Amino acid sequence: MDIRFDGERLRAGSRARERFYDSRGYGQPREGNLELAPVEAAHLLFRGDIERVLDSRDGEDRPLGFGALLASTAVSEVSFFVYKDLRDRGFYLSPTRDTGEGETDTTASGGEFVVYPRGRGPWDDAVAYRVRAVSEREAVPARALRALVDRATADGATAVLAVVDEESEVTYLELSEPAVDGATDHDLPAVSGRLLSDRVLVDDPPEALYERGFYGQRLDPDGPLQLSLVEATQLADSGLLDLTGAGEPGARLRERGRAVEGERFDRRLRVYTGLRAAGVVPKTGFKFGADFRTYAEVTSVSELGHSERLVRVLTGEHVFAPRDLALDVRLAHGVRKQMLFALAGETLTWLAAERLTP
Amino acid sequence: MDIRFDGERLRAGSRARERFYDSRGYGQPREGNLELAPVEAAHLLFRGDIERVLDSRDGEDRPLGFGALLASTAVSEVSFFVYKDLRDRGFYLSPTRDTGEGETDTTASGGEFVVYPRGRGPWDDAVAYRVRAVSEREAVPARALRALVDRATADGATAVLAVVDEESEVTYLELSEPAVDGATDHDLPAVSGRLLSDRVLVDDPPEALYERGFYGQRLDPDGPLQLSLVEATQLADSGLLDLTGAGEPGARLRERGRAVEGERFDRRLRVYTGLRAAGVVPKTGFKFGADFRTYAEVTSVSELGHSERLVRVLTGEHVFAPRDLALDVRLAHGVRKQMLFALAGETLTWLAAERLTP
Repeated sequence: MDIRFDGERLRAGSRARERFYDSRGYGQPREGNLELAPVEAAHLLFRGDIERVLDSRDGEDRPLGFGALLASTAVSEVSFFVYKDLRDRGFYLSPTRDTGEGETDTTASGGEFVVYPRGRGPWDDAVAYRVRAVSEREAVPARALRALVDRATADGATAVLAVVDEESEVTYLELSEPAVDGATDHDLPAVSGRLLSDRVLVDDPPEALYERGFYGQRLDPDGPLQLSLVEATQLADSGLLDLTGAGEPGARLRERGRAVEGERFDRRLRVYTGLRAAGVVPKTGFKFGADFRTYAEVTSVSELGHSERLVRVLTGEHVFAPRDLALDVRLAHGVRKQMLFALAGETLTWLAAERLTP
Repeated sequence: MDIRFDGERLRAGSRARERFYDSRGYGQPREGNLELAPVEAAHLLFRGDIERVLDSRDGEDRPLGFGALLASTAVSEVSFFVYKDLRDRGFYLSPTRDTGEGETDTTASGGEFVVYPRGRGPWDDAVAYRVRAVSEREAVPARALRALVDRATADGATAVLAVVDEESEVTYLELSEPAVDGATDHDLPAVSGRLLSDRVLVDDPPEALYERGFYGQRLDPDGPLQLSLVEATQLADSGLLDLTGAGEPGARLRERGRAVEGERFDRRLRVYTGLRAAGVVPKTGFKFGADFRTYAEVTSVSELGHSERLVRVLTGEHVFAPRDLALDVRLAHGVRKQMLFALAGETLTWLAAERLTP
């Protein structure tokens, strides 16, 4: 059974098609014969199902074994490790090139795979996962992940980023676009505060501000309330906070916010305000290394449950380092929260990431 | 009881000294009278122990209350929140200005405190903690943290970074210089491998390489072994790895390493090699968002316990964002490991950080 490699695809006859495609989902049938992607041929070589392929690129038929094919530029290691790992987990899968027109969609060093539900294969229509394979050293634009979610959704599949670390282990991250809405509703009285260097002090706060709205933090059980600058600005924008001293409160707070954290203040305020508008209560996520932790429904602080999500605020142009992604997702998992990325671009969009064992 | 503020210190008479210093550790005695730092006066005002202080900066005695003193530039909020929190936890403490000569030592917005053991005070010699107070938005040079550890060690105390987040909660991180040594010892045979784009494949590995040395990762239980580029380079430098193809293996591997991760490769190799030389086995820390996880003693991989530490490799000039520090320390705590920072400057130094509840 000869399998010839022309530098892009590998071709074999109908016996190979019966043996590898019909019964085990390798490759694509072409006029009764079989066409294999290099990563598929590498896997057949690795398993010993075939002993060698014939490299016919320079007109001669030179035999290539597993090691030589993997060391060649035809197959990326990253692609092979992900392909092998998913096969080991009992899936049939196909490399895909129809990743849309955007530049961001074709940058993954390990390419993209369509993974069929267990027990199904390329001859069926169902897709379980759309998997983008990358090396841990690769920069991954948030935009590309959003596009992956869209492609997966169109297939009725789950979007997955598969990261191959330097010791060739694969970590799977499930990506999705979460619904961000809550049920917090309250009616708060207006208050007055004093602007300190990095927060606002409300000397005599009405109980509802903290207890129902979950704004700020008390200095003592019955003491003054401190508001963070984002909390204070959102309250001022809602007409609920005035400041002692001259000047429009919202403008003074923005000026101070930008002075202490630059552009990031505006991004965080935008996300904070968006969450509040959706009935979700954001509080600082500092202890989790995030911007916010969020509560979908606060009726009273004294009956508060655990926060459900962690939010990291990023620009629309953000480029992830897979290691940072792994850190965030691992931490969120450890504290039983969902990790959300708020992409503050032209519009505010959301990306959720969590660990997945396919 | 009049307490006068000259813009730097507050001064009061002997009755105040008896009441606040002798019995509760506020301030310093000066010729039978009392001298208070602004943060101490703010705390006495906050508690209602005094009602006002007299601002005598412009020759008149203008009364100042808690809110006005806190809103002035004399007291930083960060300093006040840390002072109050430690007092609430039952400690007496004193702000200190003798933080050495270095610039890095005086940059903390909240300053530094000497915290006495519970039940002790400024009239004793014992110091429990040396606490540097910073805002979560402040950049904290690794160098300054190392210097803090040195000052604390000189006092026989524990070095602590107290971070005040935007909602005014205080997170305490204990800092130390850990001993880095292990008991891993093995004798390995030399092997030959094939350089792939981002790792090395050893086709027919001797069992000891993985099983005793814990180098690499097997592709299959009896299959080829993959080595990461740092593992391969350290082995090549030890004369234990040759590569197929021309060129000195160590040089080829360094060239490839720099091509895939730049200068970071050299830093990581330096730390990897240092750990191996100390009898510690480093493996990838990717799943924890770190550079390495480490094992102090590996006798056989089949009897491996959990790794004890996570290592993040940084430059000697690294400047921490407190939020990133909090993220690393929280994650490490969640997986019951100690977080170590390797500062690869002129010399390689170590800084450990963990959560502390004073």
